[in-house]
Amino acid sequence: MKNYPIAKSRRIRSTPYTSRIEKQGVTAYTVYNHMLLPAAFGSIEDSCNHLKKEVQVWDVAAERQVEIFGEDAAKLVQLMTCRDLSKSKIGRCYYCPIIDDNGNLVNDPVILKLAEDRWWISIADSDVIFFAKGLASGNKFNVQIFEPNVDIIAIQGPKSFSLMEKVFGKKINELKFFGFDYFDFRGVKHLIARSGWSKQGGFEVYVENTQSGLDLYDHFFEIGGEFNLKPGCPNLIERIESGLLSYGNDFDNNDNPFECGFDKYVNLDSEISFLGKEKLKKIKKDGIKRKLMGVLIDTNKINLTKSLKLKDDKGNIIGDLRSACYSPHFKKVIGIAMINEPYCRASVTGLLEIEGNSLAVKVCDLPFI
Amino acid sequence: MKNYPIAKSRRIRSTPYTSRIEKQGVTAYTVYNHMLLPAAFGSIEDSCNHLKKEVQVWDVAAERQVEIFGEDAAKLVQLMTCRDLSKSKIGRCYYCPIIDDNGNLVNDPVILKLAEDRWWISIADSDVIFFAKGLASGNKFNVQIFEPNVDIIAIQGPKSFSLMEKVFGKKINELKFFGFDYFDFRGVKHLIARSGWSKQGGFEVYVENTQSGLDLYDHFFEIGGEFNLKPGCPNLIERIESGLLSYGNDFDNNDNPFECGFDKYVNLDSEISFLGKEKLKKIKKDGIKRKLMGVLIDTNKINLTKSLKLKDDKGNIIGDLRSACYSPHFKKVIGIAMINEPYCRASVTGLLEIEGNSLAVKVCDLPFI
Repeated sequence: MKNYPIAKSRRIRSTPYTSRIEKQGVTAYTVYNHMLLPAAFGSIEDSCNHLKKEVQVWDVAAERQVEIFGEDAAKLVQLMTCRDLSKSKIGRCYYCPIIDDNGNLVNDPVILKLAEDRWWISIADSDVIFFAKGLASGNKFNVQIFEPNVDIIAIQGPKSFSLMEKVFGKKINELKFFGFDYFDFRGVKHLIARSGWSKQGGFEVYVENTQSGLDLYDHFFEIGGEFNLKPGCPNLIERIESGLLSYGNDFDNNDNPFECGFDKYVNLDSEISFLGKEKLKKIKKDGIKRKLMGVLIDTNKINLTKSLKLKDDKGNIIGDLRSACYSPHFKKVIGIAMINEPYCRASVTGLLEIEGNSLAVKVCDLPFI
Repeated sequence: MKNYPIAKSRRIRSTPYTSRIEKQGVTAYTVYNHMLLPAAFGSIEDSCNHLKKEVQVWDVAAERQVEIFGEDAAKLVQLMTCRDLSKSKIGRCYYCPIIDDNGNLVNDPVILKLAEDRWWISIADSDVIFFAKGLASGNKFNVQIFEPNVDIIAIQGPKSFSLMEKVFGKKINELKFFGFDYFDFRGVKHLIARSGWSKQGGFEVYVENTQSGLDLYDHFFEIGGEFNLKPGCPNLIERIESGLLSYGNDFDNNDNPFECGFDKYVNLDSEISFLGKEKLKKIKKDGIKRKLMGVLIDTNKINLTKSLKLKDDKGNIIGDLRSACYSPHFKKVIGIAMINEPYCRASVTGLLEIEGNSLAVKVCDLPFI
């Protein structure tokens, strides 16, 4: 497949770390929240293997924050998500589907509760800030909504715990999964969460002091040799194998949370009020007509640039393949697909026509691993 | 400067025309509204010269539409823009700054009035759909809001009028600037506006019937030889010379419409109510502290990937350079910059430090041509 260069401009925002990752050998970008997000440092297979065994530092500044601050902050945040946040705690992260009036997904951020009246919505690739502003305006909520100056560095992989301990001391490893706290680096406090967009373990540093963040970035690579530290980025293979869904790829504003398997984050029985609640009750009662599933595809190579139809052997459409990659673990291509009823159950078989070939497809449950 | 390939995926949506423009020699992409937008077909200087003399067909499907339909559609559209639409007419396009509660810009779309209760917001690069959904929900408006299946083909350049007449007949040239109507191509009606993101004249075909749009695209190139038709895309040089502003590049949600020179689209004296009206009245009364201006830079080459500070000869910051390109017309680099008071007047001089060089900068009015 031919490569096309990305035309850079102010609109496609650079991050504070861009010049560093370019020196370190980034080889492809994607655009995420109007910002450059590294997509590869050479082979994504090699990078996947490294991530599973060692530790990587990622420039994920493109995970932008929407800060909701003020008297009605908690009310606005709750209105936007179907997850019950009434018992949420300061110092915790919450994975929260954001839902519109139709019961469809707007985003699937991690929400950080910084204080009762101060929240960060750490967003996937859609402008949640304008959804929040529209809702706040229409409901006359007393809140301030803005994008704070936060540029996340992620530290991911099994050796992230040792690397982070070397920088921040033993206390960093007392953080529970999806907990966050403040840790000192050369006199500057950084919010650090035990989180990240891989299933290999790790942390995210929510850098507010840009210069200190750059110093920290450089420090990781100064001392990281003993942990075989490398630069990296969210890895297509690792995230599909782990069943980490991607807004815009696997689902979007045309899909509802039940279709995406987010059932445990949809708290319809609680007293809380949120957008689309009645719609979601009806969807649950009626039952969904399609669902995100895994697929195994009998080939060892794919380059998926848009969704492709999956068919049964009579030519009936059984679903849409939305993400795919070659998995060295399964030794075949794996993918995430929106599969229609009555096909959405494990072991259903189908076909994918691609570049003149007809490939055998098998539906399976998510996650793969 | 090193080129970095764009990592394609479903999230970075292809357009119906993507496979065609790749055969025709597109050489760079940008991402706009989560979609591929061609950024170059070879040299942008050559393309600029061609655009000014001949005619080009552009894949601008990334100019997505937000459809607002229903009883409260007009009310919602008016609420979002500071431009008075109370006397707007069906069949007309309106350039409308979209404003938030703080009086800052959310987008600068062209809005098409299809019917009293049906509007298309033809958006620049931000998710206006979620702003509209938030406002509609909070205000309990009776509207439907969605992204219709519309993929625009633009026909731009002085010979666009002859090319379009050959395809659609003489009637197409009765369209007034920013007017639109429906025209037949092989039995399919297409909404066509006399508009486009260049100052060289032309049309935009709002393709709803994808197959007919593809046939039309191919037909243009079958018959376009006599007009020296070439594929093209919004041209950085032409748009800066013409002072066509770009949301995300020249201004964003941190800027207000007076700072961007949109004064004539801010109708504060009308009876209409819109978001940020009181804030804008106060801004107008107090006076703005900075303004988008042109700059002429004494060099013949630049590759601007982010904003750069402009300084006076004492090192004081006079503004931010946000877009720039070499202009063959002016035989130097021209740019668009947010210039602070008291520097925002023509003939002020300054300096731009870039790659170790200190370049002379002269402030001027917009547009350049």
